[in-house]
Amino acid sequence: MADAPSAPTAPRPRSGVASAEWLAGGSGGADRLAQLLPAALRGMAAGTAERGGPVPAGGPAAVAAALARAQSSGLPRHGVGAEQALEELSALLAAGSADPADPACAAHLHCPPLAVSVAADVVASALNPSMDSWDQAPVASEIEREFTTGIARLCYPDAARPDAVITSGGTESNLLGLLLARESAVTRPVCGANSHHSVARAAWLLGLPAPVVVPCADDRMVPSALAEALAPLGAQAVVVATAGTTNTGRIDPLPEIAEICRRTGARLHVDAAYGGLALCSESLRSRVAGLELADSVALDLHKFGWQPVAAGVFAARAEADLEALTVRAEYLNADDDTEAGLPDLLGRSLRTSRRPDAFRMAVTLRALGTSGIGALVERCCANASGVHAMVEDHPALRSWGAPELSTVVFRPTVADELPGTAGDDLVAQVRRTLLEDGTAVIGRGALPTGPDGEAQLWLKLTLLHPHTKPADYRALLDAVAAVAADLRASVTRESPIAS
Amino acid sequence: MADAPSAPTAPRPRSGVASAEWLAGGSGGADRLAQLLPAALRGMAAGTAERGGPVPAGGPAAVAAALARAQSSGLPRHGVGAEQALEELSALLAAGSADPADPACAAHLHCPPLAVSVAADVVASALNPSMDSWDQAPVASEIEREFTTGIARLCYPDAARPDAVITSGGTESNLLGLLLARESAVTRPVCGANSHHSVARAAWLLGLPAPVVVPCADDRMVPSALAEALAPLGAQAVVVATAGTTNTGRIDPLPEIAEICRRTGARLHVDAAYGGLALCSESLRSRVAGLELADSVALDLHKFGWQPVAAGVFAARAEADLEALTVRAEYLNADDDTEAGLPDLLGRSLRTSRRPDAFRMAVTLRALGTSGIGALVERCCANASGVHAMVEDHPALRSWGAPELSTVVFRPTVADELPGTAGDDLVAQVRRTLLEDGTAVIGRGALPTGPDGEAQLWLKLTLLHPHTKPADYRALLDAVAAVAADLRASVTRESPIAS
Repeated sequence: MADAPSAPTAPRPRSGVASAEWLAGGSGGADRLAQLLPAALRGMAAGTAERGGPVPAGGPAAVAAALARAQSSGLPRHGVGAEQALEELSALLAAGSADPADPACAAHLHCPPLAVSVAADVVASALNPSMDSWDQAPVASEIEREFTTGIARLCYPDAARPDAVITSGGTESNLLGLLLARESAVTRPVCGANSHHSVARAAWLLGLPAPVVVPCADDRMVPSALAEALAPLGAQAVVVATAGTTNTGRIDPLPEIAEICRRTGARLHVDAAYGGLALCSESLRSRVAGLELADSVALDLHKFGWQPVAAGVFAARAEADLEALTVRAEYLNADDDTEAGLPDLLGRSLRTSRRPDAFRMAVTLRALGTSGIGALVERCCANASGVHAMVEDHPALRSWGAPELSTVVFRPTVADELPGTAGDDLVAQVRRTLLEDGTAVIGRGALPTGPDGEAQLWLKLTLLHPHTKPADYRALLDAVAAVAADLRASVTRESPIAS
Repeated sequence: MADAPSAPTAPRPRSGVASAEWLAGGSGGADRLAQLLPAALRGMAAGTAERGGPVPAGGPAAVAAALARAQSSGLPRHGVGAEQALEELSALLAAGSADPADPACAAHLHCPPLAVSVAADVVASALNPSMDSWDQAPVASEIEREFTTGIARLCYPDAARPDAVITSGGTESNLLGLLLARESAVTRPVCGANSHHSVARAAWLLGLPAPVVVPCADDRMVPSALAEALAPLGAQAVVVATAGTTNTGRIDPLPEIAEICRRTGARLHVDAAYGGLALCSESLRSRVAGLELADSVALDLHKFGWQPVAAGVFAARAEADLEALTVRAEYLNADDDTEAGLPDLLGRSLRTSRRPDAFRMAVTLRALGTSGIGALVERCCANASGVHAMVEDHPALRSWGAPELSTVVFRPTVADELPGTAGDDLVAQVRRTLLEDGTAVIGRGALPTGPDGEAQLWLKLTLLHPHTKPADYRALLDAVAAVAADLRASVTRESPIAS
């Protein structure tokens, strides 16, 4: 096998044949990365320029065609070398991405990541600590412990021994919330109609009954309805409340819910994947008051927290609750190794091999501090208030309600002029039109606002870009109104009876 | 809030206060990364030099002390700025890591990643596609589809419609194997005594009964014992076979196992997390023959595949089997959006938010081709054969058996001179001594080699460094022998009766 040809000064992997020069770690790893990264960044810059907006125009067909032009299908038998592969595919990815660093990409809880976190992750990837045993992750496991302890204390400032583990996001955190309940013989999930789909999915995965669904008003769980649901269940129930719903960013009345759970003996898990990091802001912290009364909490630093996906944390008020995750594997955490002082990491996750995602979170916190993160959360929430005010003033838009976090929910008024489901169809088409045009990525959500409480479709902006002003969203609101008016006009032309 | 002070030519985030200059994406994202990455790489290079070996010396106490010196405990309220945080913590991580790019770090299925994959991941992190909806991951979802289809075809060259999804590793893939079985009313897991601990853990998570454990010989499942176990279970059973065990790298007799499953109507899942990528090598592919007969297969490209953790794939012979993962969430994959042509991604994983790990895998395959990956697998397996021959020739070491993949299992002969569990204690101490010295990271595994078939402890080298020669491991074997002799001598001195 021939080695890669070397450039006169620094060897570079130019051919598709790997040599020792290809490894990211070891004594020359940083140099090799320094040689390769420019190709990736060149491709990224070129692709971003080519895209020119928040999302590629043309919808799925255009994007699939761009991929087909860039490479033949199937796994290639022979390679083209590292630099070419990096530059070409990075350009393709950037040109074909929905970039949350563009203010008009504002559909989901999909944040624009901080460069400091992205850069930190390079070092984690290169050294590749795997979080399933100490001898694969000596200091990475200590950094994770330090970080998770910090998050646990943020959630539970007064608990004696809180603890937290890293997860792949709210979905896994909610699974853990139900799993820990199941392992303490609590087998009946109860959640609000506003809860994330991962709660029902976790129940299914764990072999638990489908959750009892508690009615909501204004997208918040109704405490009296919860009390009624818990009456026959009592200590058999684990309640999942939400601090920041996906549809509207609403926060359930946590203190009242916690009190009802205390009275009935039910466990309480709070899905604070969205709202949890409001704890970093002095001025917003009160919005999630009551979080500290939960038995467990889900938080996502890939929402507020500005980490690339995934950056989930699951916090438990009582460290002992996490013992349900204990597992032994002789090759990873033999009893005699644990007795000899090697920390046992395997019980810190449902996964085995696991990236040190805590590293980039810890670097970000070291760079910005909780106050820096809190300031970014405040900006997003202030933007949402400002955009909401613009919606209220807009002649062609109707607001669902004032934002509690950073989600703005609204509907083009022309949708209300259409009968039956035609209004919802128009709302859905507005979103798809803007997406397929490449103009904007905005979200949707069904809320029970119809005349008889039936679901209606709303548009939403989930504002996670921390460096915009409300005025940056004016053109987007106008575009929604204009597309809605066009669609309304075409409905009238096509079936005048509908008007 | 003050903006960060700007350098004359290019603005840099120097203070702990975030401004727009801090985002990794958008039009200036590549430039911002280019400014920040040198700090991370400088720290990484300095920390690697400080470590100077495969793992920091001093064990857990020394590593924890280094972290305590580097930062105060808890989450900092105020930040130090991006460059300082990056450089200091990257240095700390590198100095305190077990680096698999050092040949003496050879305990686990813990590979040294390729720089091309690490560099590709930077672009993925910066653009942050989240794989739960098309409007968060337009081209990333297409790249993933292309890649998973390629892997599915690699596993199942003759199947009509194979499919594959990305997972967080063998543990999640094994969970999917049992979950898909459960959803087709197959509820009794059966696995070899050689199977990974994640099989039993998946059964527990899913609310299934604990697996029936089939005896092994030579760390391979015994087909006649499997037939016996299946006799009362038949089509109720899902069998998990292993292609590359954690302890020894042995591969179960897949064609015979598949035939027994076919005859009894049992489902078959193969955990090929370790051995699966042997499919890329013309000369080694026959070792995993029979993989294509399984209903599903787990593969990890963070083992052979040289990806940073995590890079798991779960392949299914019949695309339709994956329908068990279907889930609807109005905000992510509403029926009308799917009908309008927006691809539905939510049923491609148990997770919701999800990194585009397929991107760096696809870039790596584009750079090297399957032939390039196959060549690396061949090197590791050839190294293992060479090191095994050195063990056989070594006067102070005893081999467990010839390697089938890249794992070499051996034991210092002095351990056999000690009575009772004292021999195992010595073996365990050899490993810990080398680890705490900072000399080497080697593995351990219990195998039923005692006089009456009871477990004995063995040492192992899992060779995943593709750019070494057998001779590079000679000093390591000698170090094992020397430490074993020292420990044997101290046992004799302390309790002469034991000799």
